[in-house]
Amino acid sequence: MLFFRNDYGNGAHPAVMEALCKTNLELTEGYGTDPYCQKAIECIRFLCGCPQAEVHFVAGGTQVNKTAIGAFLRPWEAVIAADSGHIQVHESGAIEHNGHRIFTVPSPDGKLRPEQISHLCSTYQQEETSPEPKLVYISNTTELGTVYTREELAALRAVCDQWGLTLYCDGARLAAAMAVSDTDFADYAALCHAFTIGGTKNGLLFGEALVITDPRLMPSFRRCMKQQGAMLAKGRLLGVQFGAILENDLYLTLARQAAQTAQLLSDGLAEQGIKMLIDSPSNQLFPVLPNTVITELQQSVSFEHWSVVSDTHSCIRFVTAWHTTNEEVAQLLSLLERLLGETK
Amino acid sequence: MLFFRNDYGNGAHPAVMEALCKTNLELTEGYGTDPYCQKAIECIRFLCGCPQAEVHFVAGGTQVNKTAIGAFLRPWEAVIAADSGHIQVHESGAIEHNGHRIFTVPSPDGKLRPEQISHLCSTYQQEETSPEPKLVYISNTTELGTVYTREELAALRAVCDQWGLTLYCDGARLAAAMAVSDTDFADYAALCHAFTIGGTKNGLLFGEALVITDPRLMPSFRRCMKQQGAMLAKGRLLGVQFGAILENDLYLTLARQAAQTAQLLSDGLAEQGIKMLIDSPSNQLFPVLPNTVITELQQSVSFEHWSVVSDTHSCIRFVTAWHTTNEEVAQLLSLLERLLGETK
Amino acid sequence: MLFFRNDYGNGAHPAVMEALCKTNLELTEGYGTDPYCQKAIECIRFLCGCPQAEVHFVAGGTQVNKTAIGAFLRPWEAVIAADSGHIQVHESGAIEHNGHRIFTVPSPDGKLRPEQISHLCSTYQQEETSPEPKLVYISNTTELGTVYTREELAALRAVCDQWGLTLYCDGARLAAAMAVSDTDFADYAALCHAFTIGGTKNGLLFGEALVITDPRLMPSFRRCMKQQGAMLAKGRLLGVQFGAILENDLYLTLARQAAQTAQLLSDGLAEQGIKMLIDSPSNQLFPVLPNTVITELQQSVSFEHWSVVSDTHSCIRFVTAWHTTNEEVAQLLSLLERLLGETK
Amino acid sequence: MLFFRNDYGNGAHPAVMEALCKTNLELTEGYGTDPYCQKAIECIRFLCGCPQAEVHFVAGGTQVNKTAIGAFLRPWEAVIAADSGHIQVHESGAIEHNGHRIFTVPSPDGKLRPEQISHLCSTYQQEETSPEPKLVYISNTTELGTVYTREELAALRAVCDQWGLTLYCDGARLAAAMAVSDTDFADYAALCHAFTIGGTKNGLLFGEALVITDPRLMPSFRRCMKQQGAMLAKGRLLGVQFGAILENDLYLTLARQAAQTAQLLSDGLAEQGIKMLIDSPSNQLFPVLPNTVITELQQSVSFEHWSVVSDTHSCIRFVTAWHTTNEEVAQLLSLLERLLGETK
Repeated sequence: MLFFRNDYGNGAHPAVMEALCKTNLELTEGYGTDPYCQKAIECIRFLCGCPQAEVHFVAGGTQVNKTAIGAFLRPWEAVIAADSGHIQVHESGAIEHNGHRIFTVPSPDGKLRPEQISHLCSTYQQEETSPEPKLVYISNTTELGTVYTREELAALRAVCDQWGLTLYCDGARLAAAMAVSDTDFADYAALCHAFTIGGTKNGLLFGEALVITDPRLMPSFRRCMKQQGAMLAKGRLLGVQFGAILENDLYLTLARQAAQTAQLLSDGLAEQGIKMLIDSPSNQLFPVLPNTVITELQQSVSFEHWSVVSDTHSCIRFVTAWHTTNEEVAQLLSLLERLLGETK
Repeated sequence: MLFFRNDYGNGAHPAVMEALCKTNLELTEGYGTDPYCQKAIECIRFLCGCPQAEVHFVAGGTQVNKTAIGAFLRPWEAVIAADSGHIQVHESGAIEHNGHRIFTVPSPDGKLRPEQISHLCSTYQQEETSPEPKLVYISNTTELGTVYTREELAALRAVCDQWGLTLYCDGARLAAAMAVSDTDFADYAALCHAFTIGGTKNGLLFGEALVITDPRLMPSFRRCMKQQGAMLAKGRLLGVQFGAILENDLYLTLARQAAQTAQLLSDGLAEQGIKMLIDSPSNQLFPVLPNTVITELQQSVSFEHWSVVSDTHSCIRFVTAWHTTNEEVAQLLSLLERLLGETK
Repeated sequence: MLFFRNDYGNGAHPAVMEALCKTNLELTEGYGTDPYCQKAIECIRFLCGCPQAEVHFVAGGTQVNKTAIGAFLRPWEAVIAADSGHIQVHESGAIEHNGHRIFTVPSPDGKLRPEQISHLCSTYQQEETSPEPKLVYISNTTELGTVYTREELAALRAVCDQWGLTLYCDGARLAAAMAVSDTDFADYAALCHAFTIGGTKNGLLFGEALVITDPRLMPSFRRCMKQQGAMLAKGRLLGVQFGAILENDLYLTLARQAAQTAQLLSDGLAEQGIKMLIDSPSNQLFPVLPNTVITELQQSVSFEHWSVVSDTHSCIRFVTAWHTTNEEVAQLLSLLERLLGETK
Repeated sequence: MLFFRNDYGNGAHPAVMEALCKTNLELTEGYGTDPYCQKAIECIRFLCGCPQAEVHFVAGGTQVNKTAIGAFLRPWEAVIAADSGHIQVHESGAIEHNGHRIFTVPSPDGKLRPEQISHLCSTYQQEETSPEPKLVYISNTTELGTVYTREELAALRAVCDQWGLTLYCDGARLAAAMAVSDTDFADYAALCHAFTIGGTKNGLLFGEALVITDPRLMPSFRRCMKQQGAMLAKGRLLGVQFGAILENDLYLTLARQAAQTAQLLSDGLAEQGIKMLIDSPSNQLFPVLPNTVITELQQSVSFEHWSVVSDTHSCIRFVTAWHTTNEEVAQLLSLLERLLGETK
């Protein structure tokens, strides 16, 4: 079975497992107060060029979004997100659970535009019978695999400053974004009030690092984490893993591997004339295929159904990961070629 | 440095790490829908003698308490707990965060008595200006290391049935309780409406298994988990670990090791005439020592301060774990003997 | 100043004030346990043909929506509403405050269609990463003054039954709806699982009656009310007022008066060739006027701006109430005629 | 039937009803933006000697406590209150519903002591696994009828300043406290960060005025009110009533009447040698009586049972109000004398 279902289907990169095994029997204090977390925090601060940043490690993506947004906002304050935003479509109301509305705006490519934010704020910020928009949620890469450039992030930050909004970037796939764009850690630190560095989808067993650069968002964060159930007893597991992945540029190296196989796959799909739902430059690809082909394909490939396109065609999602090989891509392309040939 | 600080200071038992390493590069579906979770669930059902039980795996202890109690209760319903209950003293208001009050009752040994529950219910259940007591929270072992017997659990269940309460047992240290009492998995399944099987404190990197035996508590639980941020993407990590620890009775074997070294330590403390704050039969011990000795001790032993007993004496906590050796206990006892001798 | 701003601009109908004055110095028990509340409850049960209904009185509209929906749903369950629904546009996130998402569907006339509900449920009910749609919120009249017929309500109930949803009707303007449609109290009792009978906008100082007909929604409601701050100390004020307004059919008589002046106004607007944004048969009218006319008009008429229609035209809202007179309507029409004449 | 049950058994003082009737048919804007609210706000600012205070009117006591504390605290922050505090014993978990724990301290007379606050803060403020104490809730008069002096309030404020706590005074019976103590409006404005002026229990149909003097607590309060369902559509009803009661010192006059009859009753009870559970100087009295007498008494007097004192005796509560007459007190005393005589 070829696996193009997602980028969190296996365990951890061997270097991460090795670090966990090597430190396994050491005895340290809990709840993230250990030296491994401290070292990983310092490493992130250095990469971000932001020595004063606060860094917290959280096990999961929904957990970190819920905890961060819950800490940053009051219950009557609202989030602005694309209609395909992860917090809107994949977190079962985790944000609403803290009292917040999510104002969604339509976005065929998953990216928010400054003018959409301005429009929402001009409509609702002075309207006291509405929740007050106060935070912009983006993810990079987006839920649709598209990527914000540095210039686009700067434009979002400018509109956030204009309206008094917090810019929060969910970086569950931050590495995937950095691998194919002009942004690096320091850009996120400079342009976002807070952002996450995703581990789960790029080589860790689990773990997201939340980086807070705006001092107003820092107070009492650990208490909020604890109340939300987001503080791991053996917190060092997160420090050890992030330490391992950030060393020797492994974090970006893995993402570049995934980007490279994605590009290979994307080129191959284009050669076969397969249309894409969205033009994604990153490790998620959204080909539109005949339903008959899709049915055949799932016999030997693991992937996700994305959406119905017409009576005869649907969109599916292929995701590459750090462990995806050129051979696997070649096999997938050749299989597709055969199946498409048979339908003609 | 001797480590008697807690039972979650290291990583995982080697057998657990081995299972994680062995399966590390396999590719499975996420969110607990994989075969490893399924197998671990079947194993737990078998051990509990309860094939119809629902089992969910959650990464952390606060998380599972918060999620379970939040799913079992409506916001205006309240929890009854001992004043030393973990949800009261160590979870930063995680239960209140879902709207619930915790009614605490005083308990010098950390255990709830049926008559305390009856008294609270007779006071508040018909009083509509009060939150309605609806769930009894216990932990076994308790926060003070004491242990409920099967008979005591049965008495608690009886009073719960009488008042229409849910009996929920936090089993973060369930193994420690089973190792020194007459209870086994099947007792908890029979006597509690829901309980957890703690992994973090008995050989896992992380993980608690929630076992729900009352069908009324089962609906929509996964959605509640997701909303609470309690669903791990690589859910199989929990299934793999629980699978490893429950095989060959390893779960109880590890707890028995910790209990045996605790007994050794307890006997040694008694021989030296050291008084204990509470008479705990399990892997947590609470000696009362002169402050001068405590100050010296922390130079070479890692432990927790528990409470101030007098101007000159304090209570500290020693915890043994599966990895604690007889030699370490002997070293600790000999060190104590020397320090206490010096104070005379 | 002519007042067409809303239907809650004054105090209470004289008969209601008289009842309050007459009973003012009586001494009764509090929190709705008095004979006046009991009598009003019996009257509502009779009007609804539903002796087993539970009736609760709450001071305000947002309060009753928030309390009822919070009592009926678990936090991870969601509401379906029109995008113009009152809970979406005028309650500052009161529903989200209890954890619920509101799924909105577009509706130019403010009414939900069964097929929209089916579509949402087929998309989200089995999708565990989404909040689970569990309650349909409608209001009658709608936020746009349109009105559901009995047949339409029956169709909504049918689709709710099919998907296991609760049908909740916000009746803040229930009288206005009944005055111009084929529905009566008994229809709402038969077709909705719960609905409100609005007092604030039809002759009371304040007050909404919540009627619950589905026994599954009844337990613990008073405790939920109390926790939400929705239980009035001098609860009898609500019983006395509802008693007065429901006597001698006054409730509907007042609504019919408002409907009659609205019709007069509507006819007059039509005669002048003024376009309406929505074709509303009830006491809210939405004329589209030149901005210059609107500016002039607000010198002598109190009304609400509704929406921008073009660079030169906007929609405003006129509302008639039980106290609106034919003379006031005639004055408004004549003023409009003059102002519109001047713009030509 | 003599009524000594509570101070909210009737409607409003005639002057308040008159003001409501007189303004009843006027047409004003809603939600507290009308001239009556504005005038009442100015009046309260003047009485408080605090022109910059923010004043909000809310219909009920639980509602204002829940809304204010919810606006002032983050979910992981906790309240300190006496174990008999109204938010603890009579609001069904309204405070917990916003996520907050209430830390209660024992207080036989219902009053908090500075050293109790210090002790709690020194225990929990640095303990991140605990909710963080951040607000002190008191009421004046207390739930047990006792009264804080100005000096005591100043001492509470001093300890609050020391620990960074907000001092919030629930003034549901503020008039009753001012009538028998050395405090006036300006003291509460100077010594509390926020407090309420209760109307429901001193002559209004309903209504509490929240006075916020600390600018840090002011932002977004109306949005929070709206989200909590605490904003009345016909907000002017609150402005009209508070305007009426604050004119000509009526607010204090009514409270002094209640205090005077309470004193008469208290003297009479003392003369008969009846013991009191608490020595209350205000309009709530807590006599301890033989159960046989209590049973007889309830045939002709409406009062509340308070607590069981022994197998043969219980404590009941008598409350006087502005409408209680000397004759009613004399009748109650004479009845008691007769019943107590019969038991000998």
